[in-house]
Amino acid sequence: MPTSPLDYSRGITFGYNPLDRRSEEREDGVLLAAALADAQARTYVLSGDRLLIRPGAADPGTHDPAAARDLGIDMATALLLGWLPNGSPRFAARLSVDPDGLFGGYELVDLRTLAQEALIGADSYGPVAQARSMLGWHERHGFCANCGHATTIALGGYRRDCPSCAAQHFPRIDPVAIMLVSLGDRILLGRGTRFRTGNFSCLAGFVEPGETIEDAVRRETFEEAGIRVGRVRYHASQPWPFVSTLMIGCIGEALNEDIVMDATELEACRWFSRAEVSRMVEGTHPDGITCPPRLAIARHLIDHWLQTPSTG
Amino acid sequence: MPTSPLDYSRGITFGYNPLDRRSEEREDGVLLAAALADAQARTYVLSGDRLLIRPGAADPGTHDPAAARDLGIDMATALLLGWLPNGSPRFAARLSVDPDGLFGGYELVDLRTLAQEALIGADSYGPVAQARSMLGWHERHGFCANCGHATTIALGGYRRDCPSCAAQHFPRIDPVAIMLVSLGDRILLGRGTRFRTGNFSCLAGFVEPGETIEDAVRRETFEEAGIRVGRVRYHASQPWPFVSTLMIGCIGEALNEDIVMDATELEACRWFSRAEVSRMVEGTHPDGITCPPRLAIARHLIDHWLQTPSTG
Repeated sequence: MPTSPLDYSRGITFGYNPLDRRSEEREDGVLLAAALADAQARTYVLSGDRLLIRPGAADPGTHDPAAARDLGIDMATALLLGWLPNGSPRFAARLSVDPDGLFGGYELVDLRTLAQEALIGADSYGPVAQARSMLGWHERHGFCANCGHATTIALGGYRRDCPSCAAQHFPRIDPVAIMLVSLGDRILLGRGTRFRTGNFSCLAGFVEPGETIEDAVRRETFEEAGIRVGRVRYHASQPWPFVSTLMIGCIGEALNEDIVMDATELEACRWFSRAEVSRMVEGTHPDGITCPPRLAIARHLIDHWLQTPSTG
Repeated sequence: MPTSPLDYSRGITFGYNPLDRRSEEREDGVLLAAALADAQARTYVLSGDRLLIRPGAADPGTHDPAAARDLGIDMATALLLGWLPNGSPRFAARLSVDPDGLFGGYELVDLRTLAQEALIGADSYGPVAQARSMLGWHERHGFCANCGHATTIALGGYRRDCPSCAAQHFPRIDPVAIMLVSLGDRILLGRGTRFRTGNFSCLAGFVEPGETIEDAVRRETFEEAGIRVGRVRYHASQPWPFVSTLMIGCIGEALNEDIVMDATELEACRWFSRAEVSRMVEGTHPDGITCPPRLAIARHLIDHWLQTPSTG
């Protein structure tokens, strides 16, 4: 993604979404019917966190109405994501047939590989994140949390209604604070217990009820690493479709140096110098230590810090 | 709340929360038992969005173990919010007896009045927001959204588990973008259809799946007012306990002037000059037009803009 002068978020994978959602018009059944009948409508088809693509096609990530029909997609259950600037509607649907039985040059590719290998158009990553989060929400929210009754889909997929207690349920998004914490000219990075060998990244954690974004940064950094954080600045956000997280990237200033690591969350955590981080980013670190790929907002925080003169 | 040099969020009602949550230690039953047995433990008692207070008491917003027992609170079902810096635990519990039958100088006060009249200590608003969001989540999430079975409380109230399908459910927080949009030396304010007479505020809306914070600002502003927003900057966040929203306050730069108002959401929307906004804030506007109170992050965005020289 190219860097946008408008905000840092647009330059991050899944952060650019050109669809006009027309969220205020979702109750309009005529609009939905017109979108369904539109020959320019295209559908993203997913199976879990894998997207169905057709390599070599003009738009490998979407499928036209005839292809959707051949794939056994019931468009009446598809989710209307929005419209491209040229007016073409975009839908999302779940693949319900056995993917091994597909022919016609289809492949199911997980979203990480899709992003790292740039297998679909740059303007499709945001919509695919939207599709994955929405479908994942429906898959896990078929029942009313308030009374246990089965719920029904409403507003073109943007709400689920309970016919028993009348509760309305909206798609869930979980805000997560992810932070680059610096002390002078070094930054704090950790290795989660499930990370790939050699990979270090920014610390992160879910924002909790009754907590500001800045205090979530401070709490998680203290709980995971024993480091107190003073000033916190927001940098960028990223919709992270595993399954429906809003990553909120911040930059924090450490107040102490001695790390007390939470060994249940992390298997390593230490300070990294600018020279060391440069080698990690270049892939030339003598110990093979690496950073996350550009797919992750953590890497954008790290790259931004590398490009910024130290304030410490 | 005093302004903090660390971030703007701390200076906003509900934004300052001194509790140490020790979230990594919630599985520790010994810790929970010790907190329950601690004579210094205090409990926030709520009924819906009203807090039980005892005006004139040293800490009017909390109740000691004996008072909690007299109020019929079963502390085994209370939620452990965290610990004050002095080590004193803070719990939250729902009032289960008829409030009209209470004696001992108790009052139930809604959270807005509580904040506007400063009826409890400054360090209690964050914990009360935390308590209200957590209790509200439990009240509406007694059943598994994945399978419909009744769920059970876990991790001292920070998780609900499904004994049937083994799904784990965590407290829900809904991120909302709220924005001060400026054009030169004027700002865009609107009157929601349910606002108090004469009151104008910032536009706002829920962040959606597959959307960055900045794009939520742009989408909502365009959908509600027909105004395109270019550059967006983050200002501050606020936990908003009605019931569990994370308000994300941003400042956006408008790209056009002509407003096309969504009349289903708003009953008025227009540009306000700096002189006019100053009078609204002072309460001296000739037409009686007002701004939200300092309780709301919208007012903090407006006050911040008034104090900042125009960049337009």
